[in-house]
Amino acid sequence: MPEHEQAIAALERRVRDLEDRLALMQILATYGPAVDSGSAAPAARLWTEDGVYDTYPAVLHGRAAIADMVTGELHQRLIHSGAAHLQGLPHLEVDGDRAVATAYSQLVLRDEGTDSYRIWRTGANRWEFVRTAQGWQVTHRVNRQLDGDAEARDLFSAAVDERRAQDGD
Amino acid sequence: MPEHEQAIAALERRVRDLEDRLALMQILATYGPAVDSGSAAPAARLWTEDGVYDTYPAVLHGRAAIADMVTGELHQRLIHSGAAHLQGLPHLEVDGDRAVATAYSQLVLRDEGTDSYRIWRTGANRWEFVRTAQGWQVTHRVNRQLDGDAEARDLFSAAVDERRAQDGD
Amino acid sequence: MPEHEQAIAALERRVRDLEDRLALMQILATYGPAVDSGSAAPAARLWTEDGVYDTYPAVLHGRAAIADMVTGELHQRLIHSGAAHLQGLPHLEVDGDRAVATAYSQLVLRDEGTDSYRIWRTGANRWEFVRTAQGWQVTHRVNRQLDGDAEARDLFSAAVDERRAQDGD
Repeated sequence: MPEHEQAIAALERRVRDLEDRLALMQILATYGPAVDSGSAAPAARLWTEDGVYDTYPAVLHGRAAIADMVTGELHQRLIHSGAAHLQGLPHLEVDGDRAVATAYSQLVLRDEGTDSYRIWRTGANRWEFVRTAQGWQVTHRVNRQLDGDAEARDLFSAAVDERRAQDGD
Repeated sequence: MPEHEQAIAALERRVRDLEDRLALMQILATYGPAVDSGSAAPAARLWTEDGVYDTYPAVLHGRAAIADMVTGELHQRLIHSGAAHLQGLPHLEVDGDRAVATAYSQLVLRDEGTDSYRIWRTGANRWEFVRTAQGWQVTHRVNRQLDGDAEARDLFSAAVDERRAQDGD
Repeated sequence: MPEHEQAIAALERRVRDLEDRLALMQILATYGPAVDSGSAAPAARLWTEDGVYDTYPAVLHGRAAIADMVTGELHQRLIHSGAAHLQGLPHLEVDGDRAVATAYSQLVLRDEGTDSYRIWRTGANRWEFVRTAQGWQVTHRVNRQLDGDAEARDLFSAAVDERRAQDGD
């Protein structure tokens, strides 16, 4: 292969990796606006058809269950009194057609009485993705409260501990 | 056109799109540090000369009005007692020389009495941009409180609802 | 140099700049999950061997001191009762093998009594980086509280004020 073809192929790989990372960020940046506006279908479509959202103690299986959460009474009550589902800057690992994002989430609620917002939830999240014909989609999201319990710390250490990462953990 | 020229042209388009997205993120990442340091001119320069910042109930028209907000009594009082204007991870749509970012914002204030910070405002934001000879600039920013009112939800659903997006809404 | 070689070289420079920016974001996105999971070595490895973390009133010199902070009694107490070290969207300046990120940080603590989280700290941060054979590493991070004191505002204005930036400040 001529040298410039090799250079072009190398650039194509690097550009695709960058596009992948921005596409994954876009998914996290879409989740909050979708659920806080009650947009059940756009929220559910971030997942694969049988994708899982495990947010203790609920484990939602498939898009229909995720859409039902958005249209459900609890969620509707929150967004009609003022709620924000914030996602933090994600730590990203892309490996071919699979990827993992590790990020904080917060659920912030309007408190009319004090003219302010209360942070109700702060979680450690692991988002797992697959590349599909329709772009990256979530196969599994786990959200664990940072309340002192070991589970959230384990989720975070799995992302940042290179030795464990190399062992496929 | 030879094959490698086509490949290079395709890469140039993709790289430009990635650069656009990072440039738009940089604008959001500049706004907070500018206003929280009282840097009126750098804050105003993020907008076009006649750009609008609509933050209910105030609608600021043009750079001079935005700079006046930063140097104004209320804002100066906030930043001298401790304030942070936080912007969330943006949902981005780039279309040629126009772009839209949809993101959360928060205004967090120091509360000396409790040695902590209070979230005073949490908003849904739509930032509209134009590509200029000086790079991307804000033409219009709308900030609506997530206080249960429908306006903030409508702003968010416009960004994530593909059908409405395709209709040009 | 033939025209397509020039085009490829220009693309390589642009792609490298984009990769640099995402690599710097990844460092900020790694810091929180590392310290909030008590992963002392992964946190320390974000810095150069003799890198500095200046978080008033402590100034930590070198990786060992940063790791000691993570394993120390205060930090362990925080993460075992629930803590989140959040980093905001960074303002980035890359200049060859040096870079600077300017961003907000927050330290959010679980408050069991009110079933919520309290924002204990909100800071202005300047992260300085060097490109090494192992990728980008932090040489110096300064974190100053946004409590009304001039230091945090000065840190932010240095990042956004173009005139000062051009003077090398």
